[in-house]
Amino acid sequence: MSKQETKADFKHFLTIPTRWMDNDIYGHVNNVIYYSYIDTVANEYLIHHGGLDIHHDSVIAVAVESQCKYFRPIVFPDSIEAGLRVGHLGNTSVRYEIGLFNACEDTLCASAYFVHVFVRRESYKPVPIPGKLRRALSKISIA
Amino acid sequence: MSKQETKADFKHFLTIPTRWMDNDIYGHVNNVIYYSYIDTVANEYLIHHGGLDIHHDSVIAVAVESQCKYFRPIVFPDSIEAGLRVGHLGNTSVRYEIGLFNACEDTLCASAYFVHVFVRRESYKPVPIPGKLRRALSKISIA
Amino acid sequence: MSKQETKADFKHFLTIPTRWMDNDIYGHVNNVIYYSYIDTVANEYLIHHGGLDIHHDSVIAVAVESQCKYFRPIVFPDSIEAGLRVGHLGNTSVRYEIGLFNACEDTLCASAYFVHVFVRRESYKPVPIPGKLRRALSKISIA
Amino acid sequence: MSKQETKADFKHFLTIPTRWMDNDIYGHVNNVIYYSYIDTVANEYLIHHGGLDIHHDSVIAVAVESQCKYFRPIVFPDSIEAGLRVGHLGNTSVRYEIGLFNACEDTLCASAYFVHVFVRRESYKPVPIPGKLRRALSKISIA
Repeated sequence: MSKQETKADFKHFLTIPTRWMDNDIYGHVNNVIYYSYIDTVANEYLIHHGGLDIHHDSVIAVAVESQCKYFRPIVFPDSIEAGLRVGHLGNTSVRYEIGLFNACEDTLCASAYFVHVFVRRESYKPVPIPGKLRRALSKISIA
Repeated sequence: MSKQETKADFKHFLTIPTRWMDNDIYGHVNNVIYYSYIDTVANEYLIHHGGLDIHHDSVIAVAVESQCKYFRPIVFPDSIEAGLRVGHLGNTSVRYEIGLFNACEDTLCASAYFVHVFVRRESYKPVPIPGKLRRALSKISIA
Repeated sequence: MSKQETKADFKHFLTIPTRWMDNDIYGHVNNVIYYSYIDTVANEYLIHHGGLDIHHDSVIAVAVESQCKYFRPIVFPDSIEAGLRVGHLGNTSVRYEIGLFNACEDTLCASAYFVHVFVRRESYKPVPIPGKLRRALSKISIA
Repeated sequence: MSKQETKADFKHFLTIPTRWMDNDIYGHVNNVIYYSYIDTVANEYLIHHGGLDIHHDSVIAVAVESQCKYFRPIVFPDSIEAGLRVGHLGNTSVRYEIGLFNACEDTLCASAYFVHVFVRRESYKPVPIPGKLRRALSKISIA
C-alpha cells in the first residue's frame, strides 16, 4: 500500500460521517477512531454483500491484526469515504486493505490493513471461510 | 415530548449511519451511543447553520444536562435519522429536543433533550448566545 | 438527587480511570462518556455482586431511560469514583442513582439516573427481576 | 516483539479497567478499543512522568502509525494491565511498544506499537522532542 493511492485503487466504498466526539483535545479525529471506520467498512461489506447474519450465523469474523498509517488529519464535521479491497484471501482468513479519504478529495488521509479470521461463534476455532462470504470477498480482491 | 411524535415534529435532520462498535454484547446499539448521535446533530447544526468555529471561536457550547428515553432498539448496520428542534431558547442556554428514527421508518426509536450553555472558552463563564448562533437556533425553535 | 450530595450518599463505589480519547476538542471529558461511566458501574454491580452472567443468562437488563446533570468538568488523566445506589426497585425494573466524583474530592462532578428493565434475552419481553439480582439490588437500595 | 513476552519485558504499567460498552456483539472487547488502551498508557506516561501539559504546551504528540496483534480475548469486567516501553527514540518521534495483559495473568492478550511525532500545536510542523519528555522517554527505552 502506498501513500499515493487514490480512490481508483479501491473496490468498495462506504460513506462514514464523523461524529462530534471523534475529535480529541487537539481538535482532530482521535487515532483510535480511524479503526472504528475500518472495522465498520469491513463488517458492512460482509453483512450487505456477503449476507453475514451477525446475530445468528454460527461462523463469525474476529480481528487478529490491524495497522493504520496516518497521513492527514480528519476533523468533525467532515465526512469520510472509506475504500475497501481484499489484499489476500486465505482459507480461514482475509486481509482487507482500506483507504480513508475525505469525501471531497482524492488524497489519502490514512491507509490501513485489517485481518479477520473466521471462527465458530461458540468455540473460537478457525474454520474455512463460508461460501457466501468467500464469493463476496473474491469480488473485491486484487490478489 | 411524546413517544408518538413523528419526523414531522422536527425541524432539522441529520443522517447518522451506525458503526460496528456501536452494538454491544446484547446485539443492539449501546445506550451510551445514542447520546453521541444527539450531540452530533446539535453541534453539526451549530457549525453548518450557525457558523460556529469550534477551533477558534471565543464562545463555545458545553453540556449541562441531557436525557434519553429508549423505545425501540437500533442495530448496526442501520442508519439513523436524527431530528432536531429547539424547545427553549434562553439568554445563555438552549434546550434541544431530539428524535432518533430508523432512516426507513417514522416511529421514534428514542427521544431526548440536551441543554447547552454558552461559555467563554477560557473561563467557562456563561455568556449570552452570540447573534449568529441565536439566529440559527431561532429558525428551528418551536417555543 | 441534589447537587450537594457527597460520597456518603451512595452505597457502592467503582473507580473508573479516564482515557485519553474521553477528552473532546474543548479539553474536557465529553458529555457522552459520562454515560459510559454510568452504565459501567451499574453493570459491574450486577455482575460482581448479583452474579449476572452476561454471556449466558436468559434474563438481561436493557436501558429504557437515563439522565445526567453536569456540574464540574472531568479531565483526562483524572480518575473517577462512581457512586451507586438504588432509588426504586420495581417488579421488572430498577432505577439507579449515580454520583460521579473526582477520586480526590467529595464534590459531585455529575449526578445521573439510569433505568434498567429486565427482559428475556431472546424476546425482549419484560420479566420479574431474578432473585439473585433482586437481593443484590436490595442491598444498595435507599427506598 | 514476540507473543511470548511477559510483564518483565515492559518498563511502565498502567491498570485500565474495561467498560461495559467495550464489549461488542460477539461478547468480547472490540478490536478498536485496544487502541484506546494503547494511546491512554502512552499519553498518561507523557503527562505524569514527562510533565506534558496537554492544555497549554506548544509542542504536542500526534499519532502517525499504530499496529496491534490480538492473541486472546479481553472481556468486560476484566481489568487490563498495560505495559509500556520505548523501542526507538528518534529526534522528532518515538516508537512505543505496548503489551496488554489481563491483570491476573502474565500471558499477552495483545501486543502493539504506536508512533508519536512531536509537532507544534498550531502548525503541526515536526520539532525535536522537548527535553522534559525526552528524559522521561529515555527512562523506559530498551534501545
